[in-house]
Amino acid sequence: MRTLKLTLSYDGTRFVGWQRQSEGESIQGLLEDALARFEGGPVSVHGAGRTDAGVHALGQVASVRLTCAHDSATLTRALNAQLPEDIRVLAVEEQDDSFHARFSARSKTYRYQIRNAPIASAFERAYVWHIAEPLRLEAMTRAAAQLTGAHDFAAFRSAGSEVSSTERTVTRSEWRETSGLLTYEISGNGFLRHMVRAIVGTLVEIGRGWREPEEIAALLEGGTRAQAGATAPPHGLFLVSVVYD
Amino acid sequence: MRTLKLTLSYDGTRFVGWQRQSEGESIQGLLEDALARFEGGPVSVHGAGRTDAGVHALGQVASVRLTCAHDSATLTRALNAQLPEDIRVLAVEEQDDSFHARFSARSKTYRYQIRNAPIASAFERAYVWHIAEPLRLEAMTRAAAQLTGAHDFAAFRSAGSEVSSTERTVTRSEWRETSGLLTYEISGNGFLRHMVRAIVGTLVEIGRGWREPEEIAALLEGGTRAQAGATAPPHGLFLVSVVYD
Repeated sequence: MRTLKLTLSYDGTRFVGWQRQSEGESIQGLLEDALARFEGGPVSVHGAGRTDAGVHALGQVASVRLTCAHDSATLTRALNAQLPEDIRVLAVEEQDDSFHARFSARSKTYRYQIRNAPIASAFERAYVWHIAEPLRLEAMTRAAAQLTGAHDFAAFRSAGSEVSSTERTVTRSEWRETSGLLTYEISGNGFLRHMVRAIVGTLVEIGRGWREPEEIAALLEGGTRAQAGATAPPHGLFLVSVVYD
Repeated sequence: MRTLKLTLSYDGTRFVGWQRQSEGESIQGLLEDALARFEGGPVSVHGAGRTDAGVHALGQVASVRLTCAHDSATLTRALNAQLPEDIRVLAVEEQDDSFHARFSARSKTYRYQIRNAPIASAFERAYVWHIAEPLRLEAMTRAAAQLTGAHDFAAFRSAGSEVSSTERTVTRSEWRETSGLLTYEISGNGFLRHMVRAIVGTLVEIGRGWREPEEIAALLEGGTRAQAGATAPPHGLFLVSVVYD
């Protein structure tokens, strides 16, 4: 058996999300089905991050164990020929047997796009959250900076999610603006379910003037999900990259 | 009656094209239906360029005569509320009665996008022509430059189209390259049916090494459609802007 690392990009619009489900098409499911043809039997693929329905990926990473002997270039070409056009395999690399896309990941980066302009674009509707009213970018930037460091992000996790600890370390949290496109990037050692979207939703409420940047500190110190902002829509979110040792 | 100039952007992917047809949704048809609601009766909209099925617009211009008294900002908002998200009205402006989107146009600019990279993008598939094999950009640039000026473009018009003259003046014809995205822009006083796509198809055949740049001159001097290259696919093409006096 060999262990492979797959780097993937996908447009999440029409999928039920990364994870295979009983109904609907998932990225994991299509990838496992495509790999099973080369392997001649069932295959399990593990993803670094379980992106939700509508969430996109520029550099998702998946690991898989295979016996088939095709080289990386052949596997890349063959997978792309089998997969639908909204999923692309960017690279296939050999790894040590200990490699696991999720458990070996050291850091992940997510990006969230907001079009802050009176009129939405006809081309971006699947990739940005359109907000017509002007946002206070300076306040959003100050609020975003407070999220870096090791914090308890319990206020920003999806209700009902079960994890042993809600402490995570965020190494970058910042906004950029280019011609009305606001881009938020966050890097960290791990993310709770819906954490990035709950953070973006809260930062946008600060941008709208409904909250002040200073509220972030209180949310990080014992705040509840109900006290943070609404979850931002999925289609503005991209898993950008995953870093390994 | 007042004459209005509408500036529009649309993602042409799912439409039968600009022009209203007996089957399928057209941009003209949806716009006329939306305007008819304000007018309380049938409305005719004229477009600067009749984009084909799958062709997009960043700045299509349409003219319409209305009696309704709504101001421009109200009309823009109301139209965008009625139209599907893949058509956006960017501006509504009052014009003299003599204004006609097609007959008053002095110049139009089209853009064609090619992704020249081994692996296609999961996000661009509706907006670029993906060509995996490396293209000779220098040869394509030399060939493109020969198209500027007043020429007979009969070799680049769609078979079966009927026009009084096939002479047009091209004022700009050039390629740009940014990280594997090849962008061709052409400006001129008018374009024959499928002219831009026939030009791009021919330039790509030069880029592939199937033809030499010097063949352009012969095509412009009595060449036939069969002698020029295949028509490039519609989804890489954008009507960028229309200039009026």
